[in-house]
Amino acid sequence: MRILLVGAGGVGTAITRIAARRTFFDHMLVADYDLPRAKAAVAALGADAHRFTPVKVDAADRDAVTALLREHDCDVLLNATDPRFVLPLFDAALAAGADYLDMAMSMSRPHPERPYEEVGVKLGDEQFARSADWAASGRLALVGMGVEPGLADVFARYAADDLFDEIEEIGIRDGANLTVDGYDFAPSFSIWTTIEECLNPPVIYEKDRGWYTTEPFSEPEVFDFPEGIGPVECVNVEHEEVLLVPRWVDARRVTFKYGLGEEFIDTLKTLHALGVDRTEPVPVRGDGGTTVRVSPRDVVAAVLPDPAELGARMRGKTCAGTWVKGVKDGRPREVYLYHVVDNQWSMREYGSQAVVWQTAVNPVIALELLADGTWKGAGVLGPEAFEPRPFLDLLVEYGSPWGMREQ
Amino acid sequence: MRILLVGAGGVGTAITRIAARRTFFDHMLVADYDLPRAKAAVAALGADAHRFTPVKVDAADRDAVTALLREHDCDVLLNATDPRFVLPLFDAALAAGADYLDMAMSMSRPHPERPYEEVGVKLGDEQFARSADWAASGRLALVGMGVEPGLADVFARYAADDLFDEIEEIGIRDGANLTVDGYDFAPSFSIWTTIEECLNPPVIYEKDRGWYTTEPFSEPEVFDFPEGIGPVECVNVEHEEVLLVPRWVDARRVTFKYGLGEEFIDTLKTLHALGVDRTEPVPVRGDGGTTVRVSPRDVVAAVLPDPAELGARMRGKTCAGTWVKGVKDGRPREVYLYHVVDNQWSMREYGSQAVVWQTAVNPVIALELLADGTWKGAGVLGPEAFEPRPFLDLLVEYGSPWGMREQ
Repeated sequence: MRILLVGAGGVGTAITRIAARRTFFDHMLVADYDLPRAKAAVAALGADAHRFTPVKVDAADRDAVTALLREHDCDVLLNATDPRFVLPLFDAALAAGADYLDMAMSMSRPHPERPYEEVGVKLGDEQFARSADWAASGRLALVGMGVEPGLADVFARYAADDLFDEIEEIGIRDGANLTVDGYDFAPSFSIWTTIEECLNPPVIYEKDRGWYTTEPFSEPEVFDFPEGIGPVECVNVEHEEVLLVPRWVDARRVTFKYGLGEEFIDTLKTLHALGVDRTEPVPVRGDGGTTVRVSPRDVVAAVLPDPAELGARMRGKTCAGTWVKGVKDGRPREVYLYHVVDNQWSMREYGSQAVVWQTAVNPVIALELLADGTWKGAGVLGPEAFEPRPFLDLLVEYGSPWGMREQ
Repeated sequence: MRILLVGAGGVGTAITRIAARRTFFDHMLVADYDLPRAKAAVAALGADAHRFTPVKVDAADRDAVTALLREHDCDVLLNATDPRFVLPLFDAALAAGADYLDMAMSMSRPHPERPYEEVGVKLGDEQFARSADWAASGRLALVGMGVEPGLADVFARYAADDLFDEIEEIGIRDGANLTVDGYDFAPSFSIWTTIEECLNPPVIYEKDRGWYTTEPFSEPEVFDFPEGIGPVECVNVEHEEVLLVPRWVDARRVTFKYGLGEEFIDTLKTLHALGVDRTEPVPVRGDGGTTVRVSPRDVVAAVLPDPAELGARMRGKTCAGTWVKGVKDGRPREVYLYHVVDNQWSMREYGSQAVVWQTAVNPVIALELLADGTWKGAGVLGPEAFEPRPFLDLLVEYGSPWGMREQ
C-alpha cells in the first residue's frame, strides 16, 4: 500500500510516528503546504524515515493533489488537514482512482432562516452526495475515521452488534482533565476546528423526527468520565457521529456532548460576540502599511500556542467514548465504551500529545485493516459500516486498550 | 489660525462639524492616511466645507507631516489619531514651529519586573521629556485636551481654584448607560484605545508615595452618575488625568475609574487571556494564500463595528466628570463636576455619536481660547495649567452645559 498523507500538523505528525512502527504499507508521502513542516515530521522518524518522503502541496488545489497521487501511484489519500480542505482532497482522490480517508467531514451550513431548529447543509452532505460516483468507481471513501468521529462510531456499531437488542440512545461523550502549564488559555486541539464545531448549531438525531438543531451549548449535563478524570460538564456540540451513526446503526436518539467546562464555553461565547470567530476575510492594515485581508479566526489560531507543541507542558488524560442505553435480553442496560490516553504515556512513547495521538491512531488502524483486506468496501462509508471487532482488537495490539463500564 | 487636523475617524469628523460653526479659525486641513475618509468628512459639511481641505498623510511619517505643516503654513496641529501616532505628530509640530494639541498622550510601558506595583515609562513621559525644547521654541504643546483627559482636568483646576481650600482626593469617574441595538458587543469608543487603557496596569497618584500601579480592574466601586444614568460599577484604569492633574493641582490622591460594567471587563479579560489584545504582528495566511503579518488587536478592531458609525443605533447618555473631596472654609466638602451628552441630542445636532462628540468639542474650545489669546503658553502643558473658567463658559456657549452636584 502506498499512502499520500496530506497535512503534517499535530495529527499528521503523530500518524507518521504510529505508522512507522507498522509493516502493512510500503510508502507514505507526507505532504504539506509548509514543506519544512513535512520535512521535520519525516526527519523526526530517524532510522524509520526511509519509508516516508516529504513533499509540498496545497491541499486546496485539487488538480495538484490528483497529479501527486498519480505521479507516486498512491493507493489511498489520508486527509489530516482541517475541514476546509475536505472537498478538494476528496475529489482529488476520486479523480486519481485512489481510496480516501478523513477524520472530519465536509462542512455544514446553518439553515438560513431557522438555524437553531432545523438543519441546513449537514456535515458530510457534500460527500454523501457523491456516494454513487465512488461506488461506481469501486473506490472507498471512509469518512470520519479519527477518534470522534471514528473510534466512537466503531463503539456504536459494536454495541449494536454485541451488547444490545434494542437501543434507545447513543450519546458520544468526550471529556478530559488536561491542563497546560504556563498558559491562561491553551486549547489542546485545533482552535479553528473547535470554534467550528462548538459555535455551529448542535445537531441531534431522533428516529421519529430526523436531524434537527438547537442553540449552541444546549442541554448541559455532568458526565462522570473513567480512569480518574471524573465529572465534567458536557454540552451539545455539532459533530459527525450524529450524522454517521444513524445511517448504519438502529437507535432512537443520537447525540454528541463535549466536556468543554464553563470557562471554555464563556471564552467561545466571547469570541463569537466579538465576531473574531468569523472566517470571511476582513481588511486590516498589515505590517508594511498596506491593507491585507485575513480571516479573524486564522488570527486567533496564529496567536494561540500550537496545540501540537504543548505536549511537554500538558498533564492529564483525555477520554473519548460512546454511552449507550437500551435493552438486552429483556432487561435495561447502559454502558460506556471508552478510550483514554494519558498525555504522559503518549509523550513518552510517541512524543505526541494525548489528543492528537488519540485522533491519529485510528486512521492508521483503519488503513491496516484495508491493507490486509479485513475491511473492504466501495462508496462513501462511515466507520460503523464495518466489522467493529477487528478494529477494537488491533487498537489493543497497538498498545492502547479500550474499556467498557456497565452503568 | 490655520489648523492641520490629523485623523478623520470618529473624533476627527466630529471636530470638523463642531469647528464649522465657529469663526475663530481661517482654514482647517483634514488629513488621513485614508484620503476618501478625509474627503467624506469634508463633503459632509455641505455649505460649510469651504474652510476645510481634505489631504492624505501617513501620521507615522514625521517628515511628511512636517512638510505638510510648512507647505500650508499651519499654526497648529490637532492630533485626532490613536496614541501610536502621538510621538511622530508631536515631533513634526515642533520641527515645523507649530503649536500642538492632542487628546491622548504618548504611551506607557509597564515596569519590567513589577508591572502591577511600580510605574515604568508613564503616559506622556516621552512628551514631557521634551518640554524644554518646546519652551525654548516658544511653542505650546497642549496635551490631553479631549474630554478625559481634557475637560476632566479643567474641572480639577476649577475645583482647586474656586471650590476647595484643601483637596484630599480627585477621582475622575466615567460612566454611561449607552446601548447599541443589534450588536452583542459594540464598544462606543475605539477598541484599540480601550484595550490599551484597560489592560495596562492602572496608575494611581498619592502625594506621599508618588505614582504607583495596581492590577487591572482594581478597587471596584459603584458610582452614581447624574441625569438618569444611575449607579455603574467602576474600576481603576490607566488614564492621563492621573499623570497630569498632580503636576498643576495640589491633591493628596488622584485616581481614574471607568464604569466598564462586568460584561465588558470579562470580555477584555478573555481578549487578554487569548492574546488577541497584542499589538506585535503575527504571521498569518492572507486571503491570497501568502503569509502576511498583522497585529491581532488591529484585527479585533477591524471585526467590530466602527464606533463612529453606531450613532443611529445607539441610545442613552454618557457622563465624564471629576469627583473632588476636601475641605472648604473648615468644613468637609464633596462635589462631582460633570458633563453629560445625550446621544439623541448629538446625533440630531451634529450627526455624531455621544462619546466621540464629547471628546471632540473640547479641543475645538481650546483652539478658540488659543486663537483669541485667552489661553497662552509655551512648553508641554496640560489643560489644568490654564484658567478654567473661560473654558467652562465657552462649553456652555457651544450649547453643551456642564453640571455640579454637591454630595
